[in-house]
Amino acid sequence: MKHFLSIQDFSLDDIIENILKLAFVAVTDAREQRCREPLYLASRNAKVTLLFREPSTRTLSSYREAAELLGFRVQEISGVEATSFMKKESFADGVRTLAEEGANILVIRDRFEGAPRFAAEVLDRMGYSIPVHNAGDGANRHPTQAILNALTILRKLGRLHDFTVGFLGDLRYSRTIHSDLDMLKLLMQKHGDIRLKAVSAPEAALLPSQKMGLAIEESDSLEILRDCHVVMATRIQEERYPDKNEAKKVMGRFMITRQVLDSMMDPDVIIMHPLPRGLEIAPEISEDQRVVMWEQMGYGVPARMALLRLSYTGRNEAYAPLSIPESELTTLDEEGVESRLAKREAKYGADVDRYFRPIRERGMVIDHLPVGAGDRVKHLLRDFAGLRGDEGCIHLLEGMKVKKGTPEEHRKDALVLEGQYIGKEFYGIITFMVPDVTFNVIREGTFTKCKSAMPERLPAGIFLCPNEVCITNNDPEARARFAVHSDGQFVSCYYCNRIFSREEILKKF
Amino acid sequence: MKHFLSIQDFSLDDIIENILKLAFVAVTDAREQRCREPLYLASRNAKVTLLFREPSTRTLSSYREAAELLGFRVQEISGVEATSFMKKESFADGVRTLAEEGANILVIRDRFEGAPRFAAEVLDRMGYSIPVHNAGDGANRHPTQAILNALTILRKLGRLHDFTVGFLGDLRYSRTIHSDLDMLKLLMQKHGDIRLKAVSAPEAALLPSQKMGLAIEESDSLEILRDCHVVMATRIQEERYPDKNEAKKVMGRFMITRQVLDSMMDPDVIIMHPLPRGLEIAPEISEDQRVVMWEQMGYGVPARMALLRLSYTGRNEAYAPLSIPESELTTLDEEGVESRLAKREAKYGADVDRYFRPIRERGMVIDHLPVGAGDRVKHLLRDFAGLRGDEGCIHLLEGMKVKKGTPEEHRKDALVLEGQYIGKEFYGIITFMVPDVTFNVIREGTFTKCKSAMPERLPAGIFLCPNEVCITNNDPEARARFAVHSDGQFVSCYYCNRIFSREEILKKF
Amino acid sequence: MKHFLSIQDFSLDDIIENILKLAFVAVTDAREQRCREPLYLASRNAKVTLLFREPSTRTLSSYREAAELLGFRVQEISGVEATSFMKKESFADGVRTLAEEGANILVIRDRFEGAPRFAAEVLDRMGYSIPVHNAGDGANRHPTQAILNALTILRKLGRLHDFTVGFLGDLRYSRTIHSDLDMLKLLMQKHGDIRLKAVSAPEAALLPSQKMGLAIEESDSLEILRDCHVVMATRIQEERYPDKNEAKKVMGRFMITRQVLDSMMDPDVIIMHPLPRGLEIAPEISEDQRVVMWEQMGYGVPARMALLRLSYTGRNEAYAPLSIPESELTTLDEEGVESRLAKREAKYGADVDRYFRPIRERGMVIDHLPVGAGDRVKHLLRDFAGLRGDEGCIHLLEGMKVKKGTPEEHRKDALVLEGQYIGKEFYGIITFMVPDVTFNVIREGTFTKCKSAMPERLPAGIFLCPNEVCITNNDPEARARFAVHSDGQFVSCYYCNRIFSREEILKKF
Repeated sequence: MKHFLSIQDFSLDDIIENILKLAFVAVTDAREQRCREPLYLASRNAKVTLLFREPSTRTLSSYREAAELLGFRVQEISGVEATSFMKKESFADGVRTLAEEGANILVIRDRFEGAPRFAAEVLDRMGYSIPVHNAGDGANRHPTQAILNALTILRKLGRLHDFTVGFLGDLRYSRTIHSDLDMLKLLMQKHGDIRLKAVSAPEAALLPSQKMGLAIEESDSLEILRDCHVVMATRIQEERYPDKNEAKKVMGRFMITRQVLDSMMDPDVIIMHPLPRGLEIAPEISEDQRVVMWEQMGYGVPARMALLRLSYTGRNEAYAPLSIPESELTTLDEEGVESRLAKREAKYGADVDRYFRPIRERGMVIDHLPVGAGDRVKHLLRDFAGLRGDEGCIHLLEGMKVKKGTPEEHRKDALVLEGQYIGKEFYGIITFMVPDVTFNVIREGTFTKCKSAMPERLPAGIFLCPNEVCITNNDPEARARFAVHSDGQFVSCYYCNRIFSREEILKKF
Repeated sequence: MKHFLSIQDFSLDDIIENILKLAFVAVTDAREQRCREPLYLASRNAKVTLLFREPSTRTLSSYREAAELLGFRVQEISGVEATSFMKKESFADGVRTLAEEGANILVIRDRFEGAPRFAAEVLDRMGYSIPVHNAGDGANRHPTQAILNALTILRKLGRLHDFTVGFLGDLRYSRTIHSDLDMLKLLMQKHGDIRLKAVSAPEAALLPSQKMGLAIEESDSLEILRDCHVVMATRIQEERYPDKNEAKKVMGRFMITRQVLDSMMDPDVIIMHPLPRGLEIAPEISEDQRVVMWEQMGYGVPARMALLRLSYTGRNEAYAPLSIPESELTTLDEEGVESRLAKREAKYGADVDRYFRPIRERGMVIDHLPVGAGDRVKHLLRDFAGLRGDEGCIHLLEGMKVKKGTPEEHRKDALVLEGQYIGKEFYGIITFMVPDVTFNVIREGTFTKCKSAMPERLPAGIFLCPNEVCITNNDPEARARFAVHSDGQFVSCYYCNRIFSREEILKKF
Repeated sequence: MKHFLSIQDFSLDDIIENILKLAFVAVTDAREQRCREPLYLASRNAKVTLLFREPSTRTLSSYREAAELLGFRVQEISGVEATSFMKKESFADGVRTLAEEGANILVIRDRFEGAPRFAAEVLDRMGYSIPVHNAGDGANRHPTQAILNALTILRKLGRLHDFTVGFLGDLRYSRTIHSDLDMLKLLMQKHGDIRLKAVSAPEAALLPSQKMGLAIEESDSLEILRDCHVVMATRIQEERYPDKNEAKKVMGRFMITRQVLDSMMDPDVIIMHPLPRGLEIAPEISEDQRVVMWEQMGYGVPARMALLRLSYTGRNEAYAPLSIPESELTTLDEEGVESRLAKREAKYGADVDRYFRPIRERGMVIDHLPVGAGDRVKHLLRDFAGLRGDEGCIHLLEGMKVKKGTPEEHRKDALVLEGQYIGKEFYGIITFMVPDVTFNVIREGTFTKCKSAMPERLPAGIFLCPNEVCITNNDPEARARFAVHSDGQFVSCYYCNRIFSREEILKKF
């Protein structure tokens, strides 16, 4: 293991066999404040740097405790110091600074989503061997919290299967719950006996995009938690409610009081909470044995000890940058250029392909673009593929009539490139922009009509992420890239993990 | 020793034989930055956590130095970090967090008075063996400063008796002086040759309640300090004066200048100051040998080394929670129920005790309550003793005429409980509320008229502390309790140590 | 070496043979995070205290890293904590506090110019053996940055001679550049083959007083940097420009873009920057090999390791306080008092020297003062020399006619001291105030007309520094003193190093 950025980057085996097993052992070390001697020696002067530009109490101090127990030195940049750090220079410059000043592991909490992943890339690219941990990025993910939550369940229930978990609180914006769901997805792929429930006000419920692929029973009543083995509560944020009185009322409904705990819950339930608590767990049950949130918090130390050990010992692992995605073309139809031209002229008149004639030797027609898309594709090729008029004429045909005079008559754009071709990486990008596009390749007297597959990924630097707190909109050197899914209808940002429709992406193009 | 919360918790022997003796030795260790090896090994991975939600320069850094020289790791939560800690969660939750994240000793400075004591209770109750030190709580106490002040006097004068000490500055609100006075009270109980003087503007003089039991000569002129061996100055706070020009004038009068020092003071006087100084000690005498405040500040390190050592080695001492106070009743009069009834009916008519008849078998009459108090007592019993109508009728008699038609005719309330009694712990509470109250107990045909002794303490959770910066008004789990003195006329809060009259307490009930 | 306050305090040999040589070796130690064992043992419990009342990212954390690698404990007072430190007490008191609480080396960054030098004086005077490092004081100096910059040039160019360096950015207010120029001056005194160039907007160009003694080629075009071996850029501060749009335009002109770097610069140029960067170095060249600013920043650690080692091992060096400057008088003319009087009465009438008669035995006439200066000199002598009327009459003669009735008639002041003389240290001070002054000394019947040499230094406490952010205007115990140069026309403040004309100094008297 090198970076620890998201649960999604790991397999269930990785997590159970490596991380949780080591964390389980570290529980005793942490309680007895025992140093692991061999590691202690290895890391004698090694330093863990904690860059917390967003405030934190528990995560920060448990990372510090974990690092110190492992014998690391600790550098902490947090609070006002971290904020002033941010004001004067870019995030990337800050990360380079910390690398030069001796960080051996860099732990990042940030309000910009994807910032830890971007930091990992900058460091890898510049040749520093410094693992990065995501200690919470905006509303995106908080994977170390998911590890300690899993460790809590494992220690209290003795198993990581056959249980019902009920979420309570702010599901939509809680990065902790997002990472918990990542973890539960992994577990559910293996075990059929994990059941999910969720209670929240409609304003804080999971969005459809967040529930993709998850069977989850939702309600706005605490009743649903009756048979849960585990209740995972998170802070309900008063500030989201425009009407404070309304907020108080809503929050009252979702509070686990003495009465709820004693009369409604399973007698062996465990109530978890990442803390700080809001009004979900009443002060009167703070010291009830079933409220395991203090013990849970304590597991933050061994969980992070395990992650630091794995990162530190694995920190020389080779870096494999993501390759630039290329798409191959599939031939739909092929014929001689001259015979094709002759056929069409016979059918539609001599004028029909007048723009096409100059490229009967070499070139390409990007065809079947909706009206307006032609210009966008031209700009894409000009800005990113370096397409220029001086290497062969470029014709942008806008609003051509198709099937003129027939009932299906409509208009389209087409882009005609004389004597030029475009790089393979652009087939997919254009297909993402215009799924119906065809690429007509003219080469050595043959006209080949092709389509490209929908790409799996969109490369960096072409489309902007619509999420304004994504790191890609907050650092001059960070550029968004996306995974494409659902046949091109949706993409998710590689940094902030938010899901957007194609329309949302193209609006920002 | 376990917790170190107040000088008042210790005997003079404890302080001299244990704390000051160890501190005296530690002076050399501190100066030479020498580690005490055995302790160093014992505490190899132990951690001192400094929770400073109120700013501090000297106390914070001398605690850090002391802990580091003893070989402890140090976790510091101060400044903005500590403030944000406070905003999102309760103090009690914060304390539990620090316990779970590996604190072995917890040092607390807080603006809420009594916060360190409350923290100690939470930790004890949850079973953590973590000593708590009070590093200054609001305007209440600062006991470690009193220890280092005593160490300074001991080192400079060579004795802790036969001296005159003059206080100068803000006596009313200085927690340091409050702890110094605690210490001097202990010393004066043993030695008759300690004399106290005090100089301050009337706005900053000690309140009568603060001087209880102390012989102290007060003045608003520096002249009074002429024959002092020790002058203990504290910052005069400009911000207390509504008129800035007035403030400057007042402060000028209390400044020890070169001229005052040379012409008015004893040539061997020592001038102490806990720092930061205001206008009490002129810059021109900063480096005069008699101004020992720098050396005094330096003694903060060995004083805290001693306290940390004693706490750490004593941290497994058993915890003895305060028992709930119970009062016994004293019988004033006893007779048969029937004969009593017959006598009274003969005297006042058949109607006289009509409300009393249903309880001739079992029950209680809480009698001689002033008009209006009956309702308050009923609420007390309903809310805290669980008194309910369905276990026997409850009659609240309000404004009954007593000694009807006689010159002493007046009205009273009485509370009649059919077939019910109240717990022993409530006798004292009701007696505190209504010192004239009588408890008439009817049991097996006998009517017993009783009184309760004034209680020594009032239990937690019934009365609120009128001090708005007391921790009990600033944490949902902290509940005020009080010591009762002066025959029930005054109480002092167990947390903030402020003294209130009975009327002040009852106003908030 | 003890204190490290300014490059100007050292010789080139000191810097090259001691500091840079040690820093060169420490580069490997820093990269491999290797401790120097012998030092580690020596400094086992020694503590480096970082007092940063002005924010810092790089300097602070590289000092911490350097200190930790040498085995020092580190105390950091920065950010809000440092600001609150400043609010309540004077800088001098704060420094004494840190000394008492165990600092072995004190590193200071401050917005008040001269603050580190003043701290060093306070500590020396009170007998603490604590070296002070200047980690940047206002717009004055940043000498540790100059050391790491020299180390960077040495490592990248392999030499500290035969190069052209081009400065870019804010030259007027950059303390880094001021220290770089100190260093280059030293190098240029030895090597004739170092050439300086500078590019900046007129608002940010060096002032004439800053260029004194430096041959520097200036321009407001990047073209000038064409043949530089080294470009040292500094942040251009947008906030200095009243018009933001104007600022953007100016800054665009001075940005090193990919295009500038590739087409205009020497292919082996090294681009340095102390960071954080503004708009001087475009994000697109962040990772270009010639942009060595990351590596440069990394050299902060070994540079500071070297300085800490030298300070720590040298910390018992004797302290030699600056002596109070005294001036000797030179005799211009000498004659018997009586014969002189007789001659003058014969020439100008009996009345001419009526004020002078009382001092024919002993006394002094301070003569040839311009009208108005007499009063100033009298105040000087009264306030600082303790001159009092009761030890002999003092006549202030204001506006006396000189050479009455002749064409050169003019008026002057004179100060006549009966039976009194002034201390030697005042000859120079008065001569600085009034260069034409003569001192007529009457002793044992002889009248001696004398002049004093212009003094080399002005002692502390007489004149105020006109720079309002100089430490001497910001601490009740700090008093300005000055070096006098250019025959008394200019002085420079010993603390903030700013240069002022005599008129500017006298305006504040």
